[in-house]
Order: sequence, then C-alpha cells, then structure tokens
Amino acid sequence: MPRLAFGIAYDGADWLGWQTQPSRRSVQDVVEAAMSQFAAQSVDTVCAGRTDARVHALEQVVHADISANRRLESWVKGVNALLPPSIAIQWVREVPERFHARYAAQARTYVYLLRNSPTRSPLLKGKAGWVYHPLDLDRMRAAARPLCGRHDFTSFRSSECQAPNPVRTLHALEIEQRAPFFMFRFTADGFLHHMVRNLMGALIWAGQGKLDAETMHFMLAARDRTLAPPTFAPEGLYLAQVHYPEDFELPVSSPRDALVSHLGFSLF
Amino acid sequence: MPRLAFGIAYDGADWLGWQTQPSRRSVQDVVEAAMSQFAAQSVDTVCAGRTDARVHALEQVVHADISANRRLESWVKGVNALLPPSIAIQWVREVPERFHARYAAQARTYVYLLRNSPTRSPLLKGKAGWVYHPLDLDRMRAAARPLCGRHDFTSFRSSECQAPNPVRTLHALEIEQRAPFFMFRFTADGFLHHMVRNLMGALIWAGQGKLDAETMHFMLAARDRTLAPPTFAPEGLYLAQVHYPEDFELPVSSPRDALVSHLGFSLF
Repeated sequence: MPRLAFGIAYDGADWLGWQTQPSRRSVQDVVEAAMSQFAAQSVDTVCAGRTDARVHALEQVVHADISANRRLESWVKGVNALLPPSIAIQWVREVPERFHARYAAQARTYVYLLRNSPTRSPLLKGKAGWVYHPLDLDRMRAAARPLCGRHDFTSFRSSECQAPNPVRTLHALEIEQRAPFFMFRFTADGFLHHMVRNLMGALIWAGQGKLDAETMHFMLAARDRTLAPPTFAPEGLYLAQVHYPEDFELPVSSPRDALVSHLGFSLF
Repeated sequence: MPRLAFGIAYDGADWLGWQTQPSRRSVQDVVEAAMSQFAAQSVDTVCAGRTDARVHALEQVVHADISANRRLESWVKGVNALLPPSIAIQWVREVPERFHARYAAQARTYVYLLRNSPTRSPLLKGKAGWVYHPLDLDRMRAAARPLCGRHDFTSFRSSECQAPNPVRTLHALEIEQRAPFFMFRFTADGFLHHMVRNLMGALIWAGQGKLDAETMHFMLAARDRTLAPPTFAPEGLYLAQVHYPEDFELPVSSPRDALVSHLGFSLF
C-alpha cells in the first residue's frame, strides 16, 4: 500500500488542536474525514507534532497509507475542496515505507509571533500573542542563551506531559524584532507538552526585567515547574517546519519563507 | 461640547460593515455602544468612510461630540476594554468643532491584499483575496495607468450607489509584488460604492491577460457598469488611511506602516 506524505497548514483558532477528539472538532478529525471522502476509503494519519488547541501550523507533516488509485497531483485540490477555509493541504509526495512523519523527524521548528504594543490590534487576533509592557530584546536574548543545548526541561513542561524522558536538545532559540513585533524561533529534536509556551512565559518575564540569564539557568537546573513563570497564551504559536533527512526529498520551506508565504509577515 | 476624533482598527469578518444596522451587527453599533457605556451618555459617531461587510480598517477615523468628563487618555483603554477582540480604538484626540471625520477628509487610501498562488492558505483567510491563476505585474500596472486622474467612474460603481456625482479623482493606484502577494494601493478624494472591488475585478482580468490598458480606457469612457468585469471579493480590502489637513494635528501612519504595525505585513 503506497505511503503518502502531506504538508498541511491550518489556522488553529477554530480547532481543539491536532489530535482526534470525541467531539470530532480537531484538525486530525476534519483532515481524515476529507481524505477518506476523497479516497473513498478510511484514511488514518500520523502527524509530526501534536499541536494544542488554538496553535497554528505553517507546516504540519502527516503520513498515511492509502491504496486508492488517485493521481498524486489530484490530492491537493481534491482534498482542499472538502476542507474548511481554516485548513489546507499544501503539498503531497509519495514516500518509502520507512518514512514516518513522527519518528523520521530529526527536529521541529516552532515560531512564536508576539505583538508588543500599548494598544491591542484586532487584525492578527488569534494569530499573535500580545504584551502590553515594553520588552527588551537584549534581555530576552541573554536569558535565552542558557536554554540552548541538551537539558532536562522539567521546569518547562506541563504537569500533564506524558513523555517518559524530559531531556530535549534545543538546537536554537532566536529572537528578532521589528516593532511592534517580536519573532521567536525554537528548533529542537522534540518538544515537551507546553514547552514552547512555558519558555515564552519565562522569556517575557526576562524582557520585562523580571528575570535574567542567571535566574533562567537556575530555574532550568531546579527541574521544578513551580519555580518557572506561567504558561503564555497559545495564539501566536506556529508549527513552522519539520526537519527530515534529505533523502526523503520532501519540499523544504524555511520558517521565514513560510511566514512570508502564508502571512506576508516579514521581519526584513 | 468637546469634539473628539478617534482612530479605529477592525477585522471586518464578523461585521455587517461600518454603518449601523437594524440587527446591531455593524462596527458602528458596537463602537457606539461601548463609547456610550464608557461615557455614561449616548454617543453618536460620524465616520470617514463607510466600509462594506467583511471589509477591514487599519485606520477608520470617526468623530463624536461628548460632554462626559473623562480624561482624554483614558478613552483608548476604557473603550477597548468594552469592545470585542475584532475592534480596537488606536488613538484619540480633541479636535476643533470645524473638524468633521467625513467632510474634512481630503483623500482616502484603501489597500487590497491579494494572494496569488495555486494553493489556498488558511492563515490569512478573510484577510486577503485569493487568485489561483498567475497574475502579471506589468500588465496590471499598465492597465492601472488610464484609471488615474479625474474621471466619471460610472463603469466601476455599484448599481446601488447613491452618490449624486460619479466623478472622482484617483490620485494614485500603485501595485507592488512580493510573491505570493500583491498589494494594491488606491488613493482618491473619495470612492463610489464598490469602486475599489470593481477596479480590482478589472485589474485581475488585466493580470490574466484578459484586458489591456486600451480596453480599460474604453471601459472607463463608456460609463456603463455592464461592460466592466465583475466585483471582486471584499476579504482583502482595508481602509488604510484618511488624509486630513495637517493643522488638525492628527496622528499620521502611512498605509505601509499600518500594514507592518497591524499584520507584520511588509513587501520589503
């Protein structure tokens, strides 16, 4: 049975996250229903990263084993015609059976868009976090430094996180500013439950001068969630890129390019 | 009674346009209700440009005569706390009685954001128009040229337009591209009903090679709506700037700056 990989973008505002729900109000439920209807057979998908409620995807990657005899190119238009406006397949590829959307992923990149302004804007409501108090870029960058590398991220995972191992490697945490926006880019081998939103909570405290790099180092080493600042809002969070070995020949779009393509959002 | 001027941004997706409606589902209804509650007196507003259903505003300007004794600076936070997430006051100023949001305006600028891509994107749904077929920038720019200047725009106004005089001066019509987006910027002394959306319909035909500058000139001169292409979708349309004489000392934000500030959208 051929294995297909799909790149999917979605606006998370209307959905209870990626993963299937009894209410059927998840992105997975709606995508599988549309694919099943198009293929005239039941389709089950496996995703690269389970996004939470209200979290968006510039590029979620899923795979599915599908026997239906459809032209490969017809999948994008065919399934998109059955999907609501807030979800759209971006590409499809046939992949070898050893490809697995979750286990073949070497790293994932999440982006957080933050609007830092005394007055809220209605135009990116649900698509960017908002902080009223002025944030300092250099303070946030300094506080981000101790987070990079291989660490036990217990202090930054939800109490409901079910991962057996709390150690992750944060390859990069970059912060860029173009007033009134900040863009945070997190790349890691994997993320614990609420990890990006919890790190965002701490970085925002750093930007307000409420904690520095030394405190961040201490919080990380303490491995105690109760010592770290609160979880930040989901609205500005985007699954931006899933990194696979090159030999799978999947389309590659950098988070920067994906932000421009989907939102016209550019920091330069 | 002091006269106040307000700059207001809104996401038009949820609303039946600016102007008050029996259903009370207009931006004006909601803004006046919030202002009236904050001022503890009935507030009536006059706007610079009546936007249609689903049309957005980066900056709508309104004025109101208000006797309530509130600190000027408290209006933005106070009214915003009573408004839904899709509407927010951006600034307030006290203005002389000779200021009138509609009649003092010398010109208005509308922006149209268009995504030109074979695959739709869910992230700017409701915030950008979408055209599947590739559009040619030079063809659109050439077709835009005959539209600039002082003309009878009968061919590009809705049959329901109630303006007694169909002559308007289109000061500028600029088109810029950063794939996959096009940004169209229209500045005129005033706009007829559906004028921007009707011009967009014609420009998109031009971009597809279906009409050229000569045809555009002919359509304009014919003063016949039935000869021009259909009205384009409202989703990508933004009231971006209202131009007043400098001596009113109102805040000035160019459409380009307003797009960056509200959407992070930048073509450069």
